[in-house]
Amino acid sequence: MLTTDPFDADTLHEECGVFGVFGHPEAAKLTALGLHALQHRGQEAAGIVAYDGEQFHSHRGLGHVARTFNDREEMRRLQGDSSIGHVRYATSGVTVMRNVQPLFVELECGGFSIAHNGNLTNALQLRRQLVRRGCLFQSTTDTEVIVHLMATARGGSVIDRMVEALRQIEGAFSLVALTDNALIGVRDALGVRPLVLGRMEGGAHVFASESCALDIIGAEMVRDVAPGELLVVDTAGVHSVRPFQPASSRFCLFEYIYFARPDSVMDGRSVYSIRQRIGRELAREAGVAADLVVPVPDSGVPAAIGYAAESGLPFELGIIRNHYVGRTFIEPSQSIRALGVKRKHNPNRSIIEGKRVVLIDDSIVRGTTSKKIVEMMRNAGAAEVHMRISSPPTAHSCFYGIDTPQEDKLLAHAMTVDEMAAYISADSLAFVSIDGLYRATGITEGRDAQVPQFCDACFTGDYPIALTDRDAFTNNGELPLWAARA
Amino acid sequence: MLTTDPFDADTLHEECGVFGVFGHPEAAKLTALGLHALQHRGQEAAGIVAYDGEQFHSHRGLGHVARTFNDREEMRRLQGDSSIGHVRYATSGVTVMRNVQPLFVELECGGFSIAHNGNLTNALQLRRQLVRRGCLFQSTTDTEVIVHLMATARGGSVIDRMVEALRQIEGAFSLVALTDNALIGVRDALGVRPLVLGRMEGGAHVFASESCALDIIGAEMVRDVAPGELLVVDTAGVHSVRPFQPASSRFCLFEYIYFARPDSVMDGRSVYSIRQRIGRELAREAGVAADLVVPVPDSGVPAAIGYAAESGLPFELGIIRNHYVGRTFIEPSQSIRALGVKRKHNPNRSIIEGKRVVLIDDSIVRGTTSKKIVEMMRNAGAAEVHMRISSPPTAHSCFYGIDTPQEDKLLAHAMTVDEMAAYISADSLAFVSIDGLYRATGITEGRDAQVPQFCDACFTGDYPIALTDRDAFTNNGELPLWAARA
Amino acid sequence: MLTTDPFDADTLHEECGVFGVFGHPEAAKLTALGLHALQHRGQEAAGIVAYDGEQFHSHRGLGHVARTFNDREEMRRLQGDSSIGHVRYATSGVTVMRNVQPLFVELECGGFSIAHNGNLTNALQLRRQLVRRGCLFQSTTDTEVIVHLMATARGGSVIDRMVEALRQIEGAFSLVALTDNALIGVRDALGVRPLVLGRMEGGAHVFASESCALDIIGAEMVRDVAPGELLVVDTAGVHSVRPFQPASSRFCLFEYIYFARPDSVMDGRSVYSIRQRIGRELAREAGVAADLVVPVPDSGVPAAIGYAAESGLPFELGIIRNHYVGRTFIEPSQSIRALGVKRKHNPNRSIIEGKRVVLIDDSIVRGTTSKKIVEMMRNAGAAEVHMRISSPPTAHSCFYGIDTPQEDKLLAHAMTVDEMAAYISADSLAFVSIDGLYRATGITEGRDAQVPQFCDACFTGDYPIALTDRDAFTNNGELPLWAARA
Amino acid sequence: MLTTDPFDADTLHEECGVFGVFGHPEAAKLTALGLHALQHRGQEAAGIVAYDGEQFHSHRGLGHVARTFNDREEMRRLQGDSSIGHVRYATSGVTVMRNVQPLFVELECGGFSIAHNGNLTNALQLRRQLVRRGCLFQSTTDTEVIVHLMATARGGSVIDRMVEALRQIEGAFSLVALTDNALIGVRDALGVRPLVLGRMEGGAHVFASESCALDIIGAEMVRDVAPGELLVVDTAGVHSVRPFQPASSRFCLFEYIYFARPDSVMDGRSVYSIRQRIGRELAREAGVAADLVVPVPDSGVPAAIGYAAESGLPFELGIIRNHYVGRTFIEPSQSIRALGVKRKHNPNRSIIEGKRVVLIDDSIVRGTTSKKIVEMMRNAGAAEVHMRISSPPTAHSCFYGIDTPQEDKLLAHAMTVDEMAAYISADSLAFVSIDGLYRATGITEGRDAQVPQFCDACFTGDYPIALTDRDAFTNNGELPLWAARA
Repeated sequence: MLTTDPFDADTLHEECGVFGVFGHPEAAKLTALGLHALQHRGQEAAGIVAYDGEQFHSHRGLGHVARTFNDREEMRRLQGDSSIGHVRYATSGVTVMRNVQPLFVELECGGFSIAHNGNLTNALQLRRQLVRRGCLFQSTTDTEVIVHLMATARGGSVIDRMVEALRQIEGAFSLVALTDNALIGVRDALGVRPLVLGRMEGGAHVFASESCALDIIGAEMVRDVAPGELLVVDTAGVHSVRPFQPASSRFCLFEYIYFARPDSVMDGRSVYSIRQRIGRELAREAGVAADLVVPVPDSGVPAAIGYAAESGLPFELGIIRNHYVGRTFIEPSQSIRALGVKRKHNPNRSIIEGKRVVLIDDSIVRGTTSKKIVEMMRNAGAAEVHMRISSPPTAHSCFYGIDTPQEDKLLAHAMTVDEMAAYISADSLAFVSIDGLYRATGITEGRDAQVPQFCDACFTGDYPIALTDRDAFTNNGELPLWAARA
Repeated sequence: MLTTDPFDADTLHEECGVFGVFGHPEAAKLTALGLHALQHRGQEAAGIVAYDGEQFHSHRGLGHVARTFNDREEMRRLQGDSSIGHVRYATSGVTVMRNVQPLFVELECGGFSIAHNGNLTNALQLRRQLVRRGCLFQSTTDTEVIVHLMATARGGSVIDRMVEALRQIEGAFSLVALTDNALIGVRDALGVRPLVLGRMEGGAHVFASESCALDIIGAEMVRDVAPGELLVVDTAGVHSVRPFQPASSRFCLFEYIYFARPDSVMDGRSVYSIRQRIGRELAREAGVAADLVVPVPDSGVPAAIGYAAESGLPFELGIIRNHYVGRTFIEPSQSIRALGVKRKHNPNRSIIEGKRVVLIDDSIVRGTTSKKIVEMMRNAGAAEVHMRISSPPTAHSCFYGIDTPQEDKLLAHAMTVDEMAAYISADSLAFVSIDGLYRATGITEGRDAQVPQFCDACFTGDYPIALTDRDAFTNNGELPLWAARA
Repeated sequence: MLTTDPFDADTLHEECGVFGVFGHPEAAKLTALGLHALQHRGQEAAGIVAYDGEQFHSHRGLGHVARTFNDREEMRRLQGDSSIGHVRYATSGVTVMRNVQPLFVELECGGFSIAHNGNLTNALQLRRQLVRRGCLFQSTTDTEVIVHLMATARGGSVIDRMVEALRQIEGAFSLVALTDNALIGVRDALGVRPLVLGRMEGGAHVFASESCALDIIGAEMVRDVAPGELLVVDTAGVHSVRPFQPASSRFCLFEYIYFARPDSVMDGRSVYSIRQRIGRELAREAGVAADLVVPVPDSGVPAAIGYAAESGLPFELGIIRNHYVGRTFIEPSQSIRALGVKRKHNPNRSIIEGKRVVLIDDSIVRGTTSKKIVEMMRNAGAAEVHMRISSPPTAHSCFYGIDTPQEDKLLAHAMTVDEMAAYISADSLAFVSIDGLYRATGITEGRDAQVPQFCDACFTGDYPIALTDRDAFTNNGELPLWAARA
Repeated sequence: MLTTDPFDADTLHEECGVFGVFGHPEAAKLTALGLHALQHRGQEAAGIVAYDGEQFHSHRGLGHVARTFNDREEMRRLQGDSSIGHVRYATSGVTVMRNVQPLFVELECGGFSIAHNGNLTNALQLRRQLVRRGCLFQSTTDTEVIVHLMATARGGSVIDRMVEALRQIEGAFSLVALTDNALIGVRDALGVRPLVLGRMEGGAHVFASESCALDIIGAEMVRDVAPGELLVVDTAGVHSVRPFQPASSRFCLFEYIYFARPDSVMDGRSVYSIRQRIGRELAREAGVAADLVVPVPDSGVPAAIGYAAESGLPFELGIIRNHYVGRTFIEPSQSIRALGVKRKHNPNRSIIEGKRVVLIDDSIVRGTTSKKIVEMMRNAGAAEVHMRISSPPTAHSCFYGIDTPQEDKLLAHAMTVDEMAAYISADSLAFVSIDGLYRATGITEGRDAQVPQFCDACFTGDYPIALTDRDAFTNNGELPLWAARA
C-alpha cells in the first residue's frame, strides 16, 4: 500500500499478511487464527470482513490480532461461511483506522471486500485520473485504487470488473477478495509476494500469505497460487483465471531471508532449510577462526545453526532476548538511557567472556543496530567479534511491499564492506554472496545461470516491475495532499 | 440524514446540530463549545473538522461532545482558523463511525468538509444514479450524496460545484461546509431547519443551528440565514448567493414547541416566550377546574408557567427529575421492573396527594410515556389528572429531519382525542389548536389567514416539499442493502 | 469521613449517601437503584457489598453509580439477599480507591461491611491510639476507626462490638452495616444526618439516607431511624437498640435548604414544601419592587416559586441550565475564557432584558458564583438585580459531614450583608432570617422558642457535638502523614 | 505468598520477582526496568512503591510491567531516591488488586513497604493468632502477616520490629523492604529463593531476584545476599544483620532448571551453563540412536544444545514458537478446537519428517503438554520421538514459592518412568538423574556426597523447612473464609 508520499520508504511502504476462508461455518474465527499465525507480517492493525449470505460484517482495529479479536460479542457478529482478513505492518507514522484493511465497498453489482499484501507502483498516477473523473477516495491506501477502477469499469460481473482493474495496475500484489458468492485470490504476474491455497477436511478452501497459517487451523496445503493467477473459489469449486501475460516468476528473496516464518514452505522450499543453508554458504565463503557462533535473536538462529554445523564451531545463545518487550513502556530519561539500558537483548556474559565470537544476523539496513550489538558483545568481554550476514548488502530500496529506508540511508548504498566493518566496529564483516544466496535456494549455478528466478532488486538494483510513480513524480510536493487525518 | 430505509421513521430520521467558525485562532475549541450548547440536538455522536491553512484535521466520536473532545492532545491537533462541527441525534439503531459527521472528502479542486442538519427526500434516487456511474459510497447518510454530486459536477470552483449539487437535492437542510479558503452556510429554499449567523468581537464569523450556541462563546447574533440563501464567509467578508427559486418560508413549528433550547431566538422569536404563550392559549382554550399546574420536566416547564399564569392556578414541581440518568445502567430484571422502578421521574407526593392536577407536556407520540405519567400521578394520590398538550395532535410523520415513528404508530393518527384520553387514563385531555399555536407565534389570525408561514406537516399532513423517495420506493426491500457494519 | 487534614474543609469533609437491603433475592440491584436515587449526595465514587449466605462480594468504582454498576457480569457477581451501598461526594482532591466505601473487614467473629454518611470529630485521636496498639490502617477515612475499634473490642457478638465502638466515637453519622446474618442501621445520638427505614412488598427491609431512594424501588416508608437508635434487621425481624444516652434531636438544616432531593420527606416534613415556604418567608421579610422572580437553577426553583406566589410577581426561567455539563471537557484557553464562556448557565435574554429581577439562590459560600451570576444578568440587560438567599448567612464551617470551606474563606464570616451585596454587585441582597427558616420548617415560634430542634452551627456557630480533633490538633503539621497514594 | 487455601497448589502458590533501589534520583524508573527484566518470574501483576523523602507513592496494576508502567504521568508521580517493586506470577484464580504487592502500611514508627518472593509455611497459624488479637487483614497474602507482626511488635525501630517478625515466620522468602531512611533485603535462613546485591556507578545500591535485572540498568553485581542475611542500605552504606541461626544453604534447584533467565548468574553459577551441562549429562546417561535434537521452545534450548554437542547429533529448531501468543484471544469453539489448533507451537515439518527425534524439555508436571507435543511431532512425520527431560521426575509439591499442582496430580507421583513414557506415547523417555543434576551444578560427587546443598524437595520429598500449616490444617474447610473479592 502507499500513502501520501511514496518516496519516504522508511514510513510508507509496508509488508502485510492476508488470509481468506470459503465454506466453513466459523469462517471469521478461522481467519482470526490465520491472521494470528501471520502476525509477524504486520503488527500495526488487523481486520476481518465476513459474509453471512445476506450481509457483510466488518471488524477492524489497531494493534495485534489477539487484541482486536478478543471480544466474544464482536466475534459473534462476524457471522458467515466466508471471510477475509488482513494484518498490517507497523510503521513509524500515525495509523489511521480508515486505512486499515480489508476495504469494503458497495458496487452496483453487490458488496465487495478486498485485502492486499504488496505495493502498487502506478497507484498515484491512477488515483489522479480517478479523482479527475469524480471519484472520492476514503483512504490513502493504494488498495482503494483497485476498487475505484472496479466501480467505474465498463460493467459486467464482479470478476470481469476485477480483471479489468487488475490489468491497469502495476506493482507487486497478493490479494484476497470476497463477494457475495465467491472468495478470490490473486498474485501479480511475477508472483513477487507469496500466496498459498489450502483445503480443510470438510472441503472449505483457504488462502494465506504463508503455509504456517494453514498449519494453525489444520488445513492441508494444496499449492502456491501461481504468479499471474486469479483463483475463484465458489460453491462450484476452484476456478483458475489468467488475467495477465505469462511471465517468469520473480519471487521476493527477502521472504526467505527474513520475512517469512521459518516453519513456512514457499514455492516448495522450506524457509528454515534455506536459512540454514545460507549459514553454511556463509561459513564456506567467509569462515573465520573463532570459538563460538552466536545468533542475533531470533531471526539469526537458523543461519547460525547452519554456520556452526558447517564450521564445526559450537552454537551458543550468547544473546538472550526478553520476550516481554512491548511497544509501550516508560520512556527512559536521558540519564537512564546513558546507562546503556538493554530492554530487548542481554549478552550472556558467562558464555561470551574472553571468546572469539561469530555473530550471525540476517541483514544490515542503517547499521545502527549492528553497531550496538557489536559494542554490547565487546562490553560483555568478547575477545573478537566477527559479523556474518545471511543476505548480500542491501543497497537499494524496495518498491514492492517491503518497508525499507530511502536508498541514501542504506548503509550498503554508501559504504564498501570494509567501511561498514569499521562503522560497526566489527573485527571482520562478511555478507553471503548473491550466488551463494541463490545456491542456498537450490539454484546451484547461482544467479546468472539463466534469467534470475527471484526479485533481488534490493541487492542488485534490478527492478523487474516498472516504477511508474517514482519516475513520474520526481517532486514530492507535486501531489495535492489535503488528507484529513481521521 | 437518511440511512438505508427511509420509512422506518423510528430509527432512521434524525435531528442534528451544526456549527462553524471562520477567522479565529482557536476555531476548533469554539466549535466544541458551540456543539456543547447544541448537545440537546444530538447526543449520539459529535465531530469537528478544522483547517489550518495547509491541512484539514478531523476528530469524531460516539457519545457526548464533552466525551469526544475532552482530550487535550486531540484538541491541540485540531489546529486552524476555521472549523465546522456536528452533533447527531440518538437513534435506537447501531451508530457507526463512518456515518458520524462532518464528512470530509478530497475533491479535485481541494479538500471539502460538510455537516448537515435535516433530511433529503430524494437521496435514494440520487444515490442509485450515482452508484450506477461508479461512485463508491462510504457511509449510509444522505449527506454523502451531496459530496458525490459535487465530485462528479461539471467542474468549476467548489462553490460552483456546491450550487450545482444543491439544485439537484430535495428536502430540508441546513448545511455548514468548509473549504481551504471559506466557510459556507446554506439553508434550504423553505428554511425548514434553522441556521443563524453570528459575529465575534475580533471579527470572526460563526454559523450555528441555534442562537444559544452563539451565547456560549460570547458571539453576537447577526441574523438568521435566509431561507434559500447560501452564505460564503472568507477573508473578504460575507457574501450571499441565492441558488434556489424564491419561495415562502416554512420554518419547522416543532423547533418552537420542543426541539430548540428555550433560551434560543429563532426567526426573531424567543422560543421560551412562544412556549409560555402556548401555555396561555391552552389555558384559554381548554381550562379546567383544578388545584395546581404541574409540568412534565423539563420540556413542559415554560408552557406550564404560561398555563398557571393565565389560569391563576399555582405552578408546582409535582414531578422531580433525576438529572443523573445516563444511557447505560444495570438492566433491572423483570421482578425488579415490576416494582415500578422510576429511574427518571419521581412524583412529589406531598404536593400531589389529594389534588386535582393539570399536567402539561409538549406532545404525545405513541402515548406510552403519557400513560405511565398519568398512572404515576394517580399512584402518588392525585385526585384528578388533566393532561394538556402544548402542540396539536401529531398525526403525521416528519420527513424533514425530525425523528418520528411511522404514521400508523402515532397515537393521534389512529385515535380521536377522546379515545386518546381513555387510552392514557386521564380525566381529561386537550391539545392546543393549530390556530392557537399560530397565535402563540405571533400570527394572531391563525394558520389560514394566508399561506401558512410554517411547516406544520406533522399536524396537518400538508407536506411543503416533495417526498420523492417515499413515493418511488414503496417496497422496503427494493433497495440493495449490502452495507457492512463497521 | 475524614482524611489526612481535617482542617482544610474545602477538600476533606464530605457528604455521602448510604443504602441497605435485607431479604430480597436481588439485593445488590436494588442497592444500585437506591444509590442512583441518592447520586446527588455523592458523585465521586460508589460501592456495593453483598452477602450471599457464604461469601461477601464487593464492587466499587470512581464516578457515577451508573458507570460503576453498568456491567452485567459485575452485577451477577454481587449475589445475595442482603447488601449495602455508598455514594461519596466529589471533592477537589485525588480520590483513592482504598477510601471508597463500603469498607469490608474480616473480624474474628465473621465478615463485616460498613458504609458511613457523616463525619467523626474525634477520629484522629482514636486513630492515633489504635496505631500505637499496632493497628494497620488501610484507608485514610474516619470510618476505618470504627472497624478497628470493633476488631480490638473485648469480644462478643458483632453487635456487642459495634455498640462498644459506637460509644467511643464522637461526631455525626448515619451508618449502614452488613454482617453474615443481619443488616444494621444507626444514627448518631443527635440524629444530625438522615436515615430512613422502608419496607418492600415481599417483606424485605431497606435503609436509605433519603426517602426518594425508597420511592425508586417501590418501597414504602416505615419511619425515620430515631436519633441515637441502632436498628438490627435479621430473619427474626427488626430490633431496636439504644447504645447512647437520650438526647434532643438536632437534625441538619442544610438538608432541607439544599442537600436533600426536593421529593424526599425528612422527619415527616416535605423538603420541597419547606423550600417553598422559605421562599414565602423571604418575600415577606425582604420583599422588593420588581418585575419577575428568577431561580438560580436548579436548587433555587422551589424557593423562587414560593417567593413568586407570596409576592405576586411572575415566576420565570430567566436562566437556562445546560443539562449536559459533565466533569471533563476541553480546558478553554485564557483567550477563550475571556469571552465569558457560560457552559453551565445561559441567561434567557428575551425575558430578562429591561426587567427588575429578583434572583433566588440557596446560599452564598465564597461569593464567587453569585458575583458571576449577577454580572451575567446585567449583561443580559437586567435593569435591577435583587438577590434573595433561602438560608441565613453561612458564617461557620461544618464539621458534621458537609463540605464547607474554612471559616475565613466564607464570605459571610468576614462581611456584613451590605458588604456582601457590594461584593457581588447586587442592587440589594437579603438572607432569610434564622427565625424565618425555623418557621418554614413548621416551628412557628422561631429558633429560640425552646432548645433549637436543628443543627444550625453553620449559621450560628452553636456546635452541638464536641470538636475534639479540631481542639487537639491545632497544628496542621502535627500528624504523621506517610500515606502512599494508591 | 499464600491465599485462602494452601493445599490447592495449582492456584495458590506463586513465584514472584522483587527489586529495590536506594540512592538514585530516578529510582522508580530503574525499578520498572528491573521488574521488566524479571517479568518471566511473574506476569500477573506488578507494583512499585517509591519514597521521596516525605511521602511514599505507590502504583500497582494487573498484567505486564510495560502495561502498568507505561504512563508518563504515573511515573512522574513515583518520585524519590528509593523504590521497591514486585512482579507476581500468573495463577489460574482471580487476581485481586489488594493482593498486588508491594504492600504499604503506616506503622507507628513510620511508613513501611515490603515485597516478597517465596512462601511462608506457618502463615495461616500466625494469621489466626493475629486476627484473634484484633488485627484486620486487608489482603489474603502471607506477606501481610509480616507487617502485622511488625505493627504489634514490642516496639523499637523498624529494623528491630522486622527482626522480631522474621524470627516468627517459617518458610522460604526473599524480601525487599523500604522505610523512610533505608532499603532492606532479606533472604531466609536456607536461602531457598535468590536475591542479589548490585551497585550502580554513582553509588546507588540495588537488590534484585536475579542478576539479569542488574544488567538491564547497567548495575554491577556485588554478591548474592547470603542465606539468613538481612542487609540494610542507607545513607551510611550497607550493613549486614543476621537474625537467624546459621544453617546450610539449600538453594532451589528449579531456579537453575527452569525458572531463572538463562543469562542470570546465581550463587556464582551461570544458569545457561548449568542447563547446557544438564543436557550433556542427559546425553551421557540416556543417549539414544537418533537423527536430530529438538528443543521444546524456549526453555529446552540450552539443554538441547548441550545434548546435541555431547551426542554429536545436529541441533535443529523442529518446533517454531509463535511469539505473539497473548493471554486473551477468541475462544475457539469445540469444532475449531478439534482441528488441533496450535496457537503457541508449530512443528517444522520439513525438518522433522521421517526423522528420529530427541525432544528436550525441562520437566513433566501433569504430562498433558508432553503428550500433545509428542503427538504433534508424530503428526508432522517424525519416525521416532525420544523425550529427554532436564530434571528428575517431579514427584512432590513445592511449598516454598513455586506453583506446583497437588502431589496426586503430578504424573511422576503416580507413575513409573515407563508408565509415563506410555502415557505420553514417546518411543522412549528419560529424566536426568538427581546425581547428574548435582554434577551439572558443579558438585561432581552427586547429591549425597555430603549434606545436599540444594532444596530438591520436589524431586526427593526431603523438605528442609517445616510445613506447619500443612500439618495443622488437614481439613481444607477448617479456616474461616469470608473474603470478599474486591
